[in-house]
Amino acid sequence: MLSLAVKERIQIVEVAPRDGLQADPADLSVDQKVELIERLAAAGHTRIEAASFVSPKAVPKMADGDAVMAAVPRSGEVSYSALALNQRGVERAVEAGVDEVCGVVVATETFSQANQRASVAESVQRWRIISETAKAAGIKTAVTVSAVCGCPYEGRVAVDKVLDIVGELAETQPDELVLADTIGVGVPTQVATLFEGAGERAPGIALRGHFHNTRNTALANIAAAMDNGVRVFDSSLGGVGGCPFAPKATGNVATEDVVYLVHEMGYDTGLDLGALIDTTAWLETQLGHGVPSLVAKAGGFPDPG
Amino acid sequence: MLSLAVKERIQIVEVAPRDGLQADPADLSVDQKVELIERLAAAGHTRIEAASFVSPKAVPKMADGDAVMAAVPRSGEVSYSALALNQRGVERAVEAGVDEVCGVVVATETFSQANQRASVAESVQRWRIISETAKAAGIKTAVTVSAVCGCPYEGRVAVDKVLDIVGELAETQPDELVLADTIGVGVPTQVATLFEGAGERAPGIALRGHFHNTRNTALANIAAAMDNGVRVFDSSLGGVGGCPFAPKATGNVATEDVVYLVHEMGYDTGLDLGALIDTTAWLETQLGHGVPSLVAKAGGFPDPG
Repeated sequence: MLSLAVKERIQIVEVAPRDGLQADPADLSVDQKVELIERLAAAGHTRIEAASFVSPKAVPKMADGDAVMAAVPRSGEVSYSALALNQRGVERAVEAGVDEVCGVVVATETFSQANQRASVAESVQRWRIISETAKAAGIKTAVTVSAVCGCPYEGRVAVDKVLDIVGELAETQPDELVLADTIGVGVPTQVATLFEGAGERAPGIALRGHFHNTRNTALANIAAAMDNGVRVFDSSLGGVGGCPFAPKATGNVATEDVVYLVHEMGYDTGLDLGALIDTTAWLETQLGHGVPSLVAKAGGFPDPG
Repeated sequence: MLSLAVKERIQIVEVAPRDGLQADPADLSVDQKVELIERLAAAGHTRIEAASFVSPKAVPKMADGDAVMAAVPRSGEVSYSALALNQRGVERAVEAGVDEVCGVVVATETFSQANQRASVAESVQRWRIISETAKAAGIKTAVTVSAVCGCPYEGRVAVDKVLDIVGELAETQPDELVLADTIGVGVPTQVATLFEGAGERAPGIALRGHFHNTRNTALANIAAAMDNGVRVFDSSLGGVGGCPFAPKATGNVATEDVVYLVHEMGYDTGLDLGALIDTTAWLETQLGHGVPSLVAKAGGFPDPG
C-alpha cells in the first residue's frame, strides 16, 4: 500500500536577490535581478527577499528596489519581502508593494553602531515605528536579531542579551522573529539554547533561522534549530552574499545545500533541487564568478540511473 | 570560584597524510610527508593515519609507506595507523612498526568490486585475516564500513545491509569500528539511525565517524553522531583528499572545521587550532593549491583583542 503521509514542510526564504547580491562584488542591473527572481519563482520559491529600502547613499547597489518590485511577477504565488531600517524605508517599501517588511536589530552595541549607526535601543525603537507603519498598511512583518552567536567587534555575546532583545521585539507581535548568526560563528549547542530561549520569550511567534557558513557550521546549526522546532530558514542561492559590515562574513548558507539537507531528512520544501542548481549555474554567468554552494558542484543524491 | 570541571574529550584521527594525500593531485616526497606528520604532531595530534600498505601498482603514490614509517618521530605520544587490505599488507604494516592497522569493507557490492576488487563477503574474510595477524603482532585494529550513507553506483543503501556487516565485523572485536560516509551524501537523521544501530550490533566496541563534506553536511553529521555518543572522528587537515574511486568525492571534512565545531560545543581535543591553521597554510605551499577548509580562511572565534 502506498503511503499517503504528507511530508512536513520546511519553508525557505530566498535572500539571494537582496542579502546575497548586496554583498557580492558584481553589480547586476534591474533586468538581471528581475530575471533572477523569475527563475527563483520558477524553481518553486514562494518567499523571496527582493529589495532593500535603506539609504541609497549607504548601499548604492540596492537603490533600485522600487524598479525591481515594479517588474517582478505578481501571480500571487510569491510573497516578496524587503529590508527597511526606518520610517522612510518602510514607507518606500509599502509604496513599492512589498508583501512583508523586515527589520534588523543588532545584538551588540559596537556592531549596531557600525551597521545601523544607532544604538540597540534606538534600533528597537525604529523597529516599533516600522512595525506600526507596516501593520497599518496591512503587510506582514519580520524582525531579525543579528550577531546572536558572536560579534566581530565584541566577541562572545551573552544569551540573555539576545533574549532580552527578543522579548522587547516580541511586544510588537511580528509575524516572524529571526535569529541570525551574521558572522557564521555559531555551533549547534548554542543555536539550540538560543532558539529554546527565544521560544519562551516570544510565545506564539514563529521563529526563523538565518545562518552563514563562514566556518562550515551552517547546516549543523539548521539541523539543531529544526530539532528545536524551527521550520523557516533564510538561505541564498549558491551561497551568494554575506554582510558587508562583518569582517570575513563569507556568505549566507547556500539554498541548494539547505534543500539537499532537509529533503534527505524527510521534509518537503516545495523546491526543485535540479532547477535551483541550474539557476545557480546561470547566476554564476551573471556574476562572473563561482559561488560557494557544494551541492551546486556535487549534485543531489547520486542517481545510478 | 573557578570551575575545575574537565572537558569531555573528542578524539580526532588525522588522515591527511594517507587518505588526504592519496586523493590529492600533488605528489609529495617522503620528506614532505614526514614533515607534515611532524607538524601535525606538534599541533597536538596523537593519532595519525600515516601510510597505506596496499598494492603499489594500484596506488603508486602510497608505495613509500615503509620509508615514511621509518622516519616519523616515535616519542610514544603519537599512535600511527596504516591501511591494509590483505595478508601481505598487514605483514608490511607490522614490519613497518605501525601502532594500528585499519581495514575497509565497502557496504555495497558494486562499489566493493570497483574499490577492492572483491565482494563484500570476500572483504570481510580478508579483514578477519588482517585482524588476526595484527592481534598476533600486538597492535590495534580498526575497521571501516564505507559508503554507509549512499553509494555512487547503487544509490541508496539499506540500513540493515550496513548493520549486518557491522555485526559480522564486530565478531573480530576490533578496537574501533568506523562508519564512513565515503561519498558525502549523509544527513543527521540517517547518521543517528546508523550509529544507534551500530551500537546495538557492536556492543562494547568504540565507534568512530568518517565524513566527507561533499554536500556540506559533514559537520551536521558529526554533531548528530556526537548526540549518539560517538567520540572519535576522522578528519583531514585543510579538508585535503577524498576517495579516488568515488565520483565527486570532493574531500574529507577539514580538521580545523571539526576542531572549531567541537571546541565551541565545549569539548576538548588536545589540538591547537591556530597551529592547525598555520600547518594548513604550509601544506598549501607544498601541494601548490588551496584546500577546502573554511576555518583555515576565516579563523577561529573572533578575538576583538
